[in-house]
Amino acid sequence: MRDSGELQQACLEMEAAQEALKREAFRQAVVNTLERRLFYIPSFKIYRGVAGLYDYGPPGCAVKANVLAFWRQHFVREENMLEVDCPCVTPEVVLKASGHVEKFTDLMVKDEKTGTCYRADHLLKDYCKDKLEKDPKLSADKAAELKHVMAVLDDLSAAELGAKIKEYNITAPDTKNSLSEPYPFNLMFQTSIGPSGLSAGYMRPETAQGIFVNFKDLYYYNGNKLPFAAAQIGQAFRNEISPRQGLLRVREFTLAEIEHFVDPVDKSHPKFSEVSQLEFFMFPREDQVSGKQARKLTIGEAVTQGIVNNETLGYFIGRVYLFLTQLGVEKDRLRFRQHLANEMAHYAADCWDAEIECSYGWIECVGIADRSAYDLRAHTDKSGVPLVAHEKYAEPKEVEKLVIAPVKKELGLAFKGNQKMIVEALEAMGEEEAMEMKSTLEAKGEAEFKVCTLDKVVTIKKNMVSISKEKKKEHQRVFTPSVIEPSFGIGRIIYCLYEHSFYTRSSKDGDEQMNVFRFPPLIAPIKCTVFPLVQNQQYEEVARKIAKSLTAAGISNKIDITGTSIGKRYARTDELGVPFAITVDSTTSVTVRERDSKQQIRVPVNEVASMVKDVTDGASTWADIQWQYPAHSS
Amino acid sequence: MRDSGELQQACLEMEAAQEALKREAFRQAVVNTLERRLFYIPSFKIYRGVAGLYDYGPPGCAVKANVLAFWRQHFVREENMLEVDCPCVTPEVVLKASGHVEKFTDLMVKDEKTGTCYRADHLLKDYCKDKLEKDPKLSADKAAELKHVMAVLDDLSAAELGAKIKEYNITAPDTKNSLSEPYPFNLMFQTSIGPSGLSAGYMRPETAQGIFVNFKDLYYYNGNKLPFAAAQIGQAFRNEISPRQGLLRVREFTLAEIEHFVDPVDKSHPKFSEVSQLEFFMFPREDQVSGKQARKLTIGEAVTQGIVNNETLGYFIGRVYLFLTQLGVEKDRLRFRQHLANEMAHYAADCWDAEIECSYGWIECVGIADRSAYDLRAHTDKSGVPLVAHEKYAEPKEVEKLVIAPVKKELGLAFKGNQKMIVEALEAMGEEEAMEMKSTLEAKGEAEFKVCTLDKVVTIKKNMVSISKEKKKEHQRVFTPSVIEPSFGIGRIIYCLYEHSFYTRSSKDGDEQMNVFRFPPLIAPIKCTVFPLVQNQQYEEVARKIAKSLTAAGISNKIDITGTSIGKRYARTDELGVPFAITVDSTTSVTVRERDSKQQIRVPVNEVASMVKDVTDGASTWADIQWQYPAHSS
Repeated sequence: MRDSGELQQACLEMEAAQEALKREAFRQAVVNTLERRLFYIPSFKIYRGVAGLYDYGPPGCAVKANVLAFWRQHFVREENMLEVDCPCVTPEVVLKASGHVEKFTDLMVKDEKTGTCYRADHLLKDYCKDKLEKDPKLSADKAAELKHVMAVLDDLSAAELGAKIKEYNITAPDTKNSLSEPYPFNLMFQTSIGPSGLSAGYMRPETAQGIFVNFKDLYYYNGNKLPFAAAQIGQAFRNEISPRQGLLRVREFTLAEIEHFVDPVDKSHPKFSEVSQLEFFMFPREDQVSGKQARKLTIGEAVTQGIVNNETLGYFIGRVYLFLTQLGVEKDRLRFRQHLANEMAHYAADCWDAEIECSYGWIECVGIADRSAYDLRAHTDKSGVPLVAHEKYAEPKEVEKLVIAPVKKELGLAFKGNQKMIVEALEAMGEEEAMEMKSTLEAKGEAEFKVCTLDKVVTIKKNMVSISKEKKKEHQRVFTPSVIEPSFGIGRIIYCLYEHSFYTRSSKDGDEQMNVFRFPPLIAPIKCTVFPLVQNQQYEEVARKIAKSLTAAGISNKIDITGTSIGKRYARTDELGVPFAITVDSTTSVTVRERDSKQQIRVPVNEVASMVKDVTDGASTWADIQWQYPAHSS
Repeated sequence: MRDSGELQQACLEMEAAQEALKREAFRQAVVNTLERRLFYIPSFKIYRGVAGLYDYGPPGCAVKANVLAFWRQHFVREENMLEVDCPCVTPEVVLKASGHVEKFTDLMVKDEKTGTCYRADHLLKDYCKDKLEKDPKLSADKAAELKHVMAVLDDLSAAELGAKIKEYNITAPDTKNSLSEPYPFNLMFQTSIGPSGLSAGYMRPETAQGIFVNFKDLYYYNGNKLPFAAAQIGQAFRNEISPRQGLLRVREFTLAEIEHFVDPVDKSHPKFSEVSQLEFFMFPREDQVSGKQARKLTIGEAVTQGIVNNETLGYFIGRVYLFLTQLGVEKDRLRFRQHLANEMAHYAADCWDAEIECSYGWIECVGIADRSAYDLRAHTDKSGVPLVAHEKYAEPKEVEKLVIAPVKKELGLAFKGNQKMIVEALEAMGEEEAMEMKSTLEAKGEAEFKVCTLDKVVTIKKNMVSISKEKKKEHQRVFTPSVIEPSFGIGRIIYCLYEHSFYTRSSKDGDEQMNVFRFPPLIAPIKCTVFPLVQNQQYEEVARKIAKSLTAAGISNKIDITGTSIGKRYARTDELGVPFAITVDSTTSVTVRERDSKQQIRVPVNEVASMVKDVTDGASTWADIQWQYPAHSS
């Protein structure tokens, strides 16, 4: 007999399983509607498709265009950002400097017989999850071990992953064949630029590098002033080993990225007060580690308490919150999660992800990182072009500077052909090393000196170099700006929006469940449909006239003159998330219906286009409009 | 002594040379301004760049976004097109079906010592041009020969090109080394999809294929009705052998393509009357062949006279004309040139290029082709999915159909294991072959039959197959639609716009030549600048308030609070093509200046944002505005 603890545990597990089933059913309903109405289409479907590649069909494409237009308005125009547009094809040297050639990899294992590839961490994770969910005989110790493995999965080296796969006897899921050792696979699509085949290139894995390499020109364009932000919208590419999760993990996607360049000693933001009162769910590192839940905080408090590193980072978190919620993301299913120490690059000062909850769990949709000076320094080093900013001092400042002056004549006599290398090595010494040499030379008259470029130790005599500290007047400070980077996965945001906007309701006769997307007018793919009530030339003419004035006003619309019943036509457009429907039932005034409330009002024919424009542009709301026009009951 | 003919010839040549110099100087002035103001930037400049790759800097990026937004309004919304968005990464099978894997090539020669690659036709063309321009001792015969070579350049095979290169002793331009034989180089960037390295893929060379493979779904989305158009905006890639002509021939570019699907037996267009009166320069095939010039024609006449193949093609030519001229392309430097027979694919019904004249000559910016059923048929054949349309007959129609019924039992007895192949071959016979076999069988009792799949001739007896024609009732017509494809090279259009918009004028003191871009508000990168007349807190506050209301209205603007003189600030923004400048010289009303006329009016502070919005949106014109507000003389 089981004790009450076991029973309680079993109940909890059953509830969790039911929740999972419900989520799965909900996702199926959403995805079926999305595919049936061509919000998206598996790419190259007639050729049986390619995993991880999707097309946006007409409504999906319109939603995407609306999201991007709003992004431009909310970020680029509102903050006067410098938007650029760089190619996807990128030469190897750029991605070597950024670290992608070396480090943009996932660990892969191969089926030793068929050669099919799998992500090593996915296999291990699936194994652990499966065991935990489905093995009733699992001991408590073993369960704890598997949970621990899942928690540290991201930190495991190739060897550690390989050892676990061996230990658990994990085989290829499709064939049960044994697996190779894990090895790194670079996720960039490789190609070759030009006809010679000698210039390696890649399809960019992010748009950010295009901005970094242009820093010097953009800084000049901005009048040599900081702070400023550059932005870019464009395609990025990741050759995933085995794409999963439908639209969430794909091989080609649209990114919208901002690189805000700021003085590292002053990360305040002049407009911070405009967002500081915003309150939303935040999930600081400490709370995650101590097993707490995300909690509501104002971004002002978060910065004051030092939870968020600085005002500029906080400002962008606030702006991202406004962006996502205005698109239609539910406030209670949005949180800002801080990266744990092991998730964050060593150079990053702080990093937060905007995560949106959907049927797949909490999904990272926007990353907001303070990357410090890393990227600009990396490209400065590799290209030799200083990507720096200048600050003129009001008064010249006196500073102590290290001066190393090799005596070329003496060095030439002593080292002949090696003289040049040694001069360069001496000049490249850091302050500490140089001052140590200075004191050794003063004490002993000579010093041992390792010249890396010669792979040799040479003896430097006192007469061969003079080392000193001199006082100099400096007129400006030269420094590498920090960069704060909000990076938006547009496809992921859109998919989450679909889930948050979807609901079903009963048909009038109660026989059917009807699908609705409650898109705000801002992102609805079509803003308005126009239906003649019956097939009749007069009504059709009025309908065409209204459609024409809507088009002229830039309002996307669809006219439906099929003889189908009005109820069916409403249902069809509810499923596309069209917020307003105009039914032409007279030649002087028409009925306008709002999608979610199903409320109807009567509006004169010659006013209806500008009314719809106002309410879709956000100049007025449906509630405002209802005051102005009589209600209509059908 | 030279005779008068020679003198006249020399004069003409001198004039042509001067014209060329003038064009070159003009281009340099435009390009200098464009580069200095970051309309574009050679990509990856700090790494010494990559030929044929360019970034759009902030003003260029804004112009591009404006051009694309107008394209969406003018084509997609106005015609209710189905816009889609497909990936750039494309599997090989798709581009094999479209013919790109086999035929998307240029002929290349290699420097035999250094391996440097050149386009064979470019080298030959350069040689001919150079000889014709610079060799005074060239005989008339030789000159005629070189001119002929240039005229037929596009038709030369690899062997013919190679022979000419040998005959003329053409060597590598950089080294004077000898050259390899010409061989085809595929212009697609190749890559590999997924980790196995076994799935070849390419970066798409055009966006059209993404639409064709989705025909079936899009047709369904459109209620299974023709005609309809699908559209796509996106990146395309061509790995040019040696990119030339700056922004005109690049390795990555933005295309905007329309595929209009239409019943091949009815290519009329319901809205043709809306464009038929438009008159512009057309250059029909016959006029080109007979050495005439382009001439003005209405598109209505061109269709009626059969110069343009059909109304739908004509409708799009008209719409393209409106699109380009509304963007700011000069009407007199725009022509529609019909493809010559040798330029056109064998399957195309008709093809016209919108060519814009710039300093490089007449540049193809939009191609408008009636590609008949080629693309849909190619993908039907390769994928096995019928990409067809249906037309229900009002009344069922009686048609005669060929019926071939192999008698499997007899064939099995006679051919055993080969039975299946023979059955398939019999069923695959065309009408003519089948009817011939029928009469032979009736006359002789048997017939010889070649079975390709067996590579054998077999004897078919009368009892082995029955062949007949039967009358059947058909309820619908099934056919492959024709496609009419307007395809826009966005980067080329933008570059030509730059040249057509650029002019210089003297500064106030006459000392300097000032650069101006006369962009229409529709595409100007920044619509309005806001200047406080002097550095003064009150004025700055007013300026910020105005800038804020402009931003809220979606009008891109730039505030300049530097203490620079107003004249200099005007000059700076004229060079960016900003159409309106607001100078804050009081706290109640401000001065608004129009860029080209330099006229100024006074507008109350609280009206200025909506006034600028009206005149940039096109709701009113500068002329209208001048009636409403008092003039200001500075």
